[in-house]
Amino acid sequence: MPVLSMNNIKSITLLAFTIVLLNGCTTVRGTGDLGVVIERATGSVQVVDTTQRTSLKQVNGLGDLSHASIVYSRDARYAYVFGRDGGLTKVDILKGEISKRVIQGGNSIGGAISQDGKLVAVSNYTPGGVKVFDANTLELVDDIPAIYGKDNQQSKTVGLVDAPGQRFVFSLYDAGEIWLVDYSGAKAQITKYKDIGLQPYDGLITPDGRYYIAGLFGEDGLALLDLWHPEKGVKRILNDYGRGTQKMPVYKMPHLEGWAMTDDYAFFPAVGRNEVLVMDRRNWKQVKKISVHGQPVFVMARPDGRQVWVNYAFPDNDTVQVIDTDKLKIVKTLKPGKAVLHMEFTPRGEHVWISARDAGKVTIYDTDSFNALTSLPMAKPSGIFFTNRAHQIGL
Amino acid sequence: MPVLSMNNIKSITLLAFTIVLLNGCTTVRGTGDLGVVIERATGSVQVVDTTQRTSLKQVNGLGDLSHASIVYSRDARYAYVFGRDGGLTKVDILKGEISKRVIQGGNSIGGAISQDGKLVAVSNYTPGGVKVFDANTLELVDDIPAIYGKDNQQSKTVGLVDAPGQRFVFSLYDAGEIWLVDYSGAKAQITKYKDIGLQPYDGLITPDGRYYIAGLFGEDGLALLDLWHPEKGVKRILNDYGRGTQKMPVYKMPHLEGWAMTDDYAFFPAVGRNEVLVMDRRNWKQVKKISVHGQPVFVMARPDGRQVWVNYAFPDNDTVQVIDTDKLKIVKTLKPGKAVLHMEFTPRGEHVWISARDAGKVTIYDTDSFNALTSLPMAKPSGIFFTNRAHQIGL
Repeated sequence: MPVLSMNNIKSITLLAFTIVLLNGCTTVRGTGDLGVVIERATGSVQVVDTTQRTSLKQVNGLGDLSHASIVYSRDARYAYVFGRDGGLTKVDILKGEISKRVIQGGNSIGGAISQDGKLVAVSNYTPGGVKVFDANTLELVDDIPAIYGKDNQQSKTVGLVDAPGQRFVFSLYDAGEIWLVDYSGAKAQITKYKDIGLQPYDGLITPDGRYYIAGLFGEDGLALLDLWHPEKGVKRILNDYGRGTQKMPVYKMPHLEGWAMTDDYAFFPAVGRNEVLVMDRRNWKQVKKISVHGQPVFVMARPDGRQVWVNYAFPDNDTVQVIDTDKLKIVKTLKPGKAVLHMEFTPRGEHVWISARDAGKVTIYDTDSFNALTSLPMAKPSGIFFTNRAHQIGL
Repeated sequence: MPVLSMNNIKSITLLAFTIVLLNGCTTVRGTGDLGVVIERATGSVQVVDTTQRTSLKQVNGLGDLSHASIVYSRDARYAYVFGRDGGLTKVDILKGEISKRVIQGGNSIGGAISQDGKLVAVSNYTPGGVKVFDANTLELVDDIPAIYGKDNQQSKTVGLVDAPGQRFVFSLYDAGEIWLVDYSGAKAQITKYKDIGLQPYDGLITPDGRYYIAGLFGEDGLALLDLWHPEKGVKRILNDYGRGTQKMPVYKMPHLEGWAMTDDYAFFPAVGRNEVLVMDRRNWKQVKKISVHGQPVFVMARPDGRQVWVNYAFPDNDTVQVIDTDKLKIVKTLKPGKAVLHMEFTPRGEHVWISARDAGKVTIYDTDSFNALTSLPMAKPSGIFFTNRAHQIGL
């Protein structure tokens, strides 16, 4: 039997305390001012703090993040990362570690979390369709193959969003369909809208969750579904919107998710043209075109709607411009670095974080003075996602 | 020198771990699904979990909470509780304890937190004016006496809200003025709007932070300040709105903060009449009156704008009604218990929590089925505040 002195016992006890403190208790903090930045080159993410404007932790092992997106659990503790390799990873942002990871498909391109926070849905290019997982365990709870046509083909699915009433909405790229899936009952109810247009390539839902809009790659115009009146079916809006008859080279199709909606207007990126289009939100008619620096990719409203920030496709992707939504004109041009890929506003809009992939940094700007406050080094940063998304419909 | 066996050492170490786990690490959790309910009779609050639908902790010693309200720190960890006795208490909702408490005035009636989360402002009946505190330390950083008139009288201040651009807005009840205070520079800049109407008794700011609206007790109509154009001054809207020429007994002045705004309409509580008024948001003109069960107090929109929930003044305060904002008519009448004081929607709107003071409970309803899911016992519950308010302008 070994003999130990009290000093030794005290040391062991102190060590035990210290280990626990280092492992667990350093993560006692609120999660309202946290976020995650995708590092696409290294398959990692950085957990960031928007109050201190710092990076807290790096989490590795998330696979191919070349076109990744994120949704948050309703407690704002877990980030669900959808990777290009079909990986679905649940990251504990408090501990800075992977909580669970599954390879759910061959090639996923986005996901959504249900209104009640219990279901995570993933849309896939390969093999197509949508898979639905338990948000807690990541166990598969539903599989929705996107079968269409006489030959029962599988379609790629795109533009997957959550909607109020425990619903998901997505588009079938190959089939030209929009599907509405309702999980409010005991079993999923699927409503299929056919012939909505050629090659829907992305979708968005308005911030109130009422209108789902799919962009069309194969023809001009947009497909709109009013979720307050799903029985009325899909209608076509903005018939002139798209690549047009005189096809311009399109360096990058604009993202739909970020489309800016203010009280009066919706601001849309033109396709293949150096323009931001301004629409009246009540009738979806075009009010104005604003000439901009390049082909717009993201057109995002500051949370108070007073400004719209725009980034551009290659070769103009070192630039960001700010549109004053009252004057409807550009008031600022910034150069955050090479290959600006994404922008994210702090929840109440005082700052914006901008990722510049080839510059290897994320820069934080004051949105009133346009001053750069600081930059954080990152490995080819792309998407930036703050935890307030946990509380928003369709994000 | 005492001799201890290895088993004893293991026990001591285990004990050490357990103590640390119980004291600190139980509070490692996200704060996105937390909230606080005011217990007005006992000067306490309960910290609640909207995912598990339970109460986690009770925090005592907050003074007179007979007309209390709350704002949140930007990390969603701290609730700033404004008590009727002038107490300003910073509650750590993760630990369930008071972090700091000061008596800042004689009779406070509400507060706000700045866009950057660094300043907490409190409005006072006695002695009047607004005091501004460091959100971290609760040290006084500015004192704004609400002096007016030839005799340099002090006015009660009401309707204090935060606005984008690091600003606060409030009204002077006795002076009939609206003051706009700008903290974006090194020193506060105050702009005073005089003669805005008789006895402004409360104020609201639209969810985008653009329009500040003060309700008038002394005359009909509302005072509106467009914060995108503060140089244009305050104008009067809805000249028929108020108690009218044939004064009805008003059992409780309606709260302004909760006024429901959907894309198309604003829903207002009529003063002293059993009506909810529907206005066109673009021109502030009345579109419709909806007859309701009593004198409305709170008229609140579900986050997706699809429903508006209404509670009533005594003697009809056992009832809540739901208005369908598409059909513009009542679709449900509920009886949550005696003296319904407040309602709070979960961030994405699937549930609503309703406090019934005299029934001593908070009941949680599913907003689609209108089923009561559960009730939590509370000591005369009043205001309910969820942490997603941390990310919203004016809340």
